[in-house]
Amino acid sequence: MPQLQRITIAFSQFHDEHITLTAEQQHYLCRVLRLQSGDRFIAMDGMGKWWLAKLLGTEAQVLQLISVETELPIAVTLIVALPKGNGFDEVVRYCTELGVTCFSPVVSDRSLLNPSPQKLERWRRIAKEAAEQSERTTVPTILEPISFSSSLSLVANKKYICEARGDYPHLLSCLQKKEDGESNLNDEKTIVIATGPEGGWTETEIEDAIHAGFRPVSLGRRILRAVTAPIVALSLVAAAHEI
Amino acid sequence: MPQLQRITIAFSQFHDEHITLTAEQQHYLCRVLRLQSGDRFIAMDGMGKWWLAKLLGTEAQVLQLISVETELPIAVTLIVALPKGNGFDEVVRYCTELGVTCFSPVVSDRSLLNPSPQKLERWRRIAKEAAEQSERTTVPTILEPISFSSSLSLVANKKYICEARGDYPHLLSCLQKKEDGESNLNDEKTIVIATGPEGGWTETEIEDAIHAGFRPVSLGRRILRAVTAPIVALSLVAAAHEI
Repeated sequence: MPQLQRITIAFSQFHDEHITLTAEQQHYLCRVLRLQSGDRFIAMDGMGKWWLAKLLGTEAQVLQLISVETELPIAVTLIVALPKGNGFDEVVRYCTELGVTCFSPVVSDRSLLNPSPQKLERWRRIAKEAAEQSERTTVPTILEPISFSSSLSLVANKKYICEARGDYPHLLSCLQKKEDGESNLNDEKTIVIATGPEGGWTETEIEDAIHAGFRPVSLGRRILRAVTAPIVALSLVAAAHEI
Repeated sequence: MPQLQRITIAFSQFHDEHITLTAEQQHYLCRVLRLQSGDRFIAMDGMGKWWLAKLLGTEAQVLQLISVETELPIAVTLIVALPKGNGFDEVVRYCTELGVTCFSPVVSDRSLLNPSPQKLERWRRIAKEAAEQSERTTVPTILEPISFSSSLSLVANKKYICEARGDYPHLLSCLQKKEDGESNLNDEKTIVIATGPEGGWTETEIEDAIHAGFRPVSLGRRILRAVTAPIVALSLVAAAHEI
């Protein structure tokens, strides 16, 4: 199945066993991918379901539901202090590949920009493309940017805040630590991880996070860029839950 | 110490307790960083040593050797099938931050480009910048691009090849697996990890690697880009050796 081309289809385009294709999708399938009538492709609803479909001119026939298991067994929300420039584009692309469920971009004390609505559209498009490319069945949600203090009220079983300076335990050891003889991993159905801006979180931000139930953790001894930290965090969460 | 600016100085610039600064370094320290005579900064030789130095016009006085521990306790060589476009720039930047020791870019059966000598210069500059930014004491080596088959003769205690398709054990579980009651980690002083091109390794490449002592491993269930795979691999190696 992996060789077939994949495309995201809105729920409203499904009618009985058929999919009505938009002009853009027809262009993509016929002109860009050069599929012809009768060729097969994978239709994804972006919510976890894939169908094998057959192109028939301006529409497609749904052949069968496909079962895929590319999603992480836990829901991971990333709180990311918006990095400078287009850095968040990279965060969205990499972390979507790595299985993130939800992005909550935040404006922290040391954040440099207040993003435009066009940015949000752009991030959502990147997430959709990256989900298709990495063969995920779900497109991650990207929330509207909020203040760091508002993001602290996000609810999860486990909440971590990554900080380069300071003597904190490593995120991986926290994820794998056995408590009462049992691995933490079994209890973690939802995780929230916060990563900071260039220059790190302020002391007040760390204190507020701890007060809100976040555990401060380290991602290693080197100073990571604001773009790199969330990618490393996701790599560790994904690996800890997939081994 | 972390607040001080850092700059890489060639060994030939050290004379007794003084550093002769190049015009470019003077410009960087005085104009870009706006340091003044008497201000302190950190001089790094890119080989693992840092000195506290004081700016004195066109030269600097060496005050003391600084002890830092930002390097991984193992030497990690990454064999990376060159990704399309400028993708390897990203690999160099991220993996340098994450502590890699050596890059061996390779041209595989599915590689798209044969890099120019200018590219190598560019990668080495990126590695130097990223090492400074992440407060590493060593700048990773970037070898000349070679064929994948030549890279297989690289010597290390443990050798892994990452492959998305196929039912291989996870890299993290291999790194952490206890053999004879002892963790693998103690034996791994040198690791080589190979990550593939867009489209993955060919079957022949995987077979040749296994024949050369490489163990095939997975980086998770999703299909990662050629740029993402080495970053994830390094995140896991660094974390496994720093927790």
